[in-house]
Amino acid sequence: MAVNVTVWSENYHEQREEDVRRRYPDGIHGAIAAGLTELLGERVRVRTAVLDEPEHGLPDAVLAETDVLMWWGHMAHEEVDDKIVERVRRRVLAGMGLVVLHSGHYSKIFRALMGTTCTVNWRDAGERELVWTVAPGHPIAADVPRPLVIDRQETYGEPFGIPEPDELVFISNFSGGEVFRSGCCYRRGLGKIFYFSPGDQQYPVYYHPGVRRVLANAALWAAPSHGVGEPLQNAHTPIQW
Amino acid sequence: MAVNVTVWSENYHEQREEDVRRRYPDGIHGAIAAGLTELLGERVRVRTAVLDEPEHGLPDAVLAETDVLMWWGHMAHEEVDDKIVERVRRRVLAGMGLVVLHSGHYSKIFRALMGTTCTVNWRDAGERELVWTVAPGHPIAADVPRPLVIDRQETYGEPFGIPEPDELVFISNFSGGEVFRSGCCYRRGLGKIFYFSPGDQQYPVYYHPGVRRVLANAALWAAPSHGVGEPLQNAHTPIQW
Amino acid sequence: MAVNVTVWSENYHEQREEDVRRRYPDGIHGAIAAGLTELLGERVRVRTAVLDEPEHGLPDAVLAETDVLMWWGHMAHEEVDDKIVERVRRRVLAGMGLVVLHSGHYSKIFRALMGTTCTVNWRDAGERELVWTVAPGHPIAADVPRPLVIDRQETYGEPFGIPEPDELVFISNFSGGEVFRSGCCYRRGLGKIFYFSPGDQQYPVYYHPGVRRVLANAALWAAPSHGVGEPLQNAHTPIQW
Amino acid sequence: MAVNVTVWSENYHEQREEDVRRRYPDGIHGAIAAGLTELLGERVRVRTAVLDEPEHGLPDAVLAETDVLMWWGHMAHEEVDDKIVERVRRRVLAGMGLVVLHSGHYSKIFRALMGTTCTVNWRDAGERELVWTVAPGHPIAADVPRPLVIDRQETYGEPFGIPEPDELVFISNFSGGEVFRSGCCYRRGLGKIFYFSPGDQQYPVYYHPGVRRVLANAALWAAPSHGVGEPLQNAHTPIQW
Repeated sequence: MAVNVTVWSENYHEQREEDVRRRYPDGIHGAIAAGLTELLGERVRVRTAVLDEPEHGLPDAVLAETDVLMWWGHMAHEEVDDKIVERVRRRVLAGMGLVVLHSGHYSKIFRALMGTTCTVNWRDAGERELVWTVAPGHPIAADVPRPLVIDRQETYGEPFGIPEPDELVFISNFSGGEVFRSGCCYRRGLGKIFYFSPGDQQYPVYYHPGVRRVLANAALWAAPSHGVGEPLQNAHTPIQW
Repeated sequence: MAVNVTVWSENYHEQREEDVRRRYPDGIHGAIAAGLTELLGERVRVRTAVLDEPEHGLPDAVLAETDVLMWWGHMAHEEVDDKIVERVRRRVLAGMGLVVLHSGHYSKIFRALMGTTCTVNWRDAGERELVWTVAPGHPIAADVPRPLVIDRQETYGEPFGIPEPDELVFISNFSGGEVFRSGCCYRRGLGKIFYFSPGDQQYPVYYHPGVRRVLANAALWAAPSHGVGEPLQNAHTPIQW
Repeated sequence: MAVNVTVWSENYHEQREEDVRRRYPDGIHGAIAAGLTELLGERVRVRTAVLDEPEHGLPDAVLAETDVLMWWGHMAHEEVDDKIVERVRRRVLAGMGLVVLHSGHYSKIFRALMGTTCTVNWRDAGERELVWTVAPGHPIAADVPRPLVIDRQETYGEPFGIPEPDELVFISNFSGGEVFRSGCCYRRGLGKIFYFSPGDQQYPVYYHPGVRRVLANAALWAAPSHGVGEPLQNAHTPIQW
Repeated sequence: MAVNVTVWSENYHEQREEDVRRRYPDGIHGAIAAGLTELLGERVRVRTAVLDEPEHGLPDAVLAETDVLMWWGHMAHEEVDDKIVERVRRRVLAGMGLVVLHSGHYSKIFRALMGTTCTVNWRDAGERELVWTVAPGHPIAADVPRPLVIDRQETYGEPFGIPEPDELVFISNFSGGEVFRSGCCYRRGLGKIFYFSPGDQQYPVYYHPGVRRVLANAALWAAPSHGVGEPLQNAHTPIQW
């Protein structure tokens, strides 16, 4: 049965900056969606949504048909409506997978689910990033080069203000000297969350075959194993047997 | 050097219900504070704060002198000002310890730091709770009876809507058949968090010597190992050597 | 593609004790294998192996065709050849799943992979065990009753001498008052390990539909996501890009 | 009360290789012991032990007085007597702290406690190692430079064949491109274990003030919070109340 993936992106840089538009003519969301379809074919049904659409493209009807939501945002985190954030959060806690990308570390939805600052150190110097697999048995690491080499990237550095991941899959080395926990898995409520740091509007990272492989693996991994229901509720439940 | 502990309590049941007032004439916070002083003496400096005070008794000046905050709330979670919640959250992420008690599982501060529903199943039937140590090497378990027996208690049951604890110290057995992860440790930002479920306004649990021992151990454990500073910030930090 | 499961059992009680033979005429391994086949059909290919066979029924050729190994042992842990234990351990570290059952907590293979005492408290008093799900989103918990009720069982109690599980799925309540972490997940090397405590030669637990559901789920969960290769090796690996 | 630390070292390179002798005239153990005494003064009582002593310098009487054992080994792991390894392992499971250093990742004692291959990738090319703090609130990270800069070091690379650490404190960046989880905490039985990778016989790493600070912090962290007793035992323990 196909996994329903919705790729959400802010889509502001692409609209406002000529160089980003040239790099991502179909938007960052478009490039990500194309990669998923390319690698997963009929195992996935992909749609996209952007900030400027009504309800940010995430009305109840769309979320109700979404098994895995991917999230890219950067310059407009504060423009995302708190009500939509809470709607997404509830859906994750009910079982929907969430894949948070790059500068999405500072999105409202990621911060709400983590509870911490989610801050990073950073520098934009076009450095080389090497993404190393530290959990070689993990499904997200399948068929990913060791290391995955990204020639030029924005640099993220530790300390990363997150809870300790439930599973740490990737750590990156930057040629300027930093390290970063670049692939982090969490279980929250009934849902699974994967944070993956490579990817920036200034670099064509989402066309990289290794990055596409990671995102395809993540879409399958984050899909709920037994459907999306309701988040856990306060209940008054006498034991019965 | 003494640990500065602030014991915060809602203090509504005690003001409004005669039986609770008789049980806790100095308030739930008063009973907890007395237990800490009794067991820790000069190792601790204890003050209390309640919801009805200005800024809920937690102005910046008080938090700035607080190493560990204990939190009991139940019927008035929604009356706690979001600004104070955020102030406490920032202080935890900067290193202050937080000990969340019983129905405080559903407090704004605990939910904000966990990111999940924090819901429980429950039933009030005066059942016996046995608190078992599952991490016998943990400092919070030192000198705690195995099991710690509470003759009559409100029943909490799984699933408890929390992230998997970084360390699970206690699990409770209720005579009605439930189990509950009753002692859970988290590290968030620079701070440490301990959730402990025993304790209710309907039962004299905070006079129980074993419960008092747990809270005294928790106060020492949650104290910041190298002071409280600032939470992690977004930074632009070139490497220097 | 079908998952190849090998169900291993000591098969001593069944040969030596009349009541156990009546309870498990096809052996404990036979009952477990039948349950897997009943619930999973063509999604699984099941074979069995017992201690008295040459190489305990686990020659290289059998392990090479095994994706998931289930292990039940009790009275003869010390009779298991250290060489076979090491062979199984290497295969787990290379990606094979391992499901350890009940008194198998004290098997050589489980102790070798955990590194700890793996001891439990216990009592045989025919008590009722309630198995509670604490990780409702976990695939091993899918379609498992909450609670799973086992009318009569041997009692296991904490502290259980294990490393903190990577994921805790089930906690049991015993009517005599104990609790036990009855469903524990580990990742070790490239392999996944699940320990499940219900199951004893004195009780017909392996015919229980809920227990059979857990074991079927565990077989699918423990299967390697991208095949079984070699365990990690010391290497001298210059980076290449 | 002072923490009793025993620093154990193989002491073979120092005896057999002139350059190592010049670098570590008092042995690697001597340099480590001097650093602990320098930084901790009366908070610690330090002794040393080496492989060539009777019972490797670790008779029962010495272990009985040891709160924290530090372990450095490299070329002679196989010469360590299995009986001494088991004696140390039991003592750790009973509460003694263990700090494993550098090539000690492949010692019998670390492998026995971890259960995995404990293998690393490596290369000796005199590269620069930057040790980054990822858990800034952790006591082992107190007063450690960010990053801790080691000008020349042997290179270790991922994947490191360990169980996921209970707390990950440091990650290293090597100038050749590798990353390594260089500071890993574990709880096993009643004891605490810290693995720290910097340190090699070819480089004067144990004189580095930042490395000495880490080891001093680790000695205090690993000390048992409530004494060393017995490891957990199989027991038949009826509940009493």
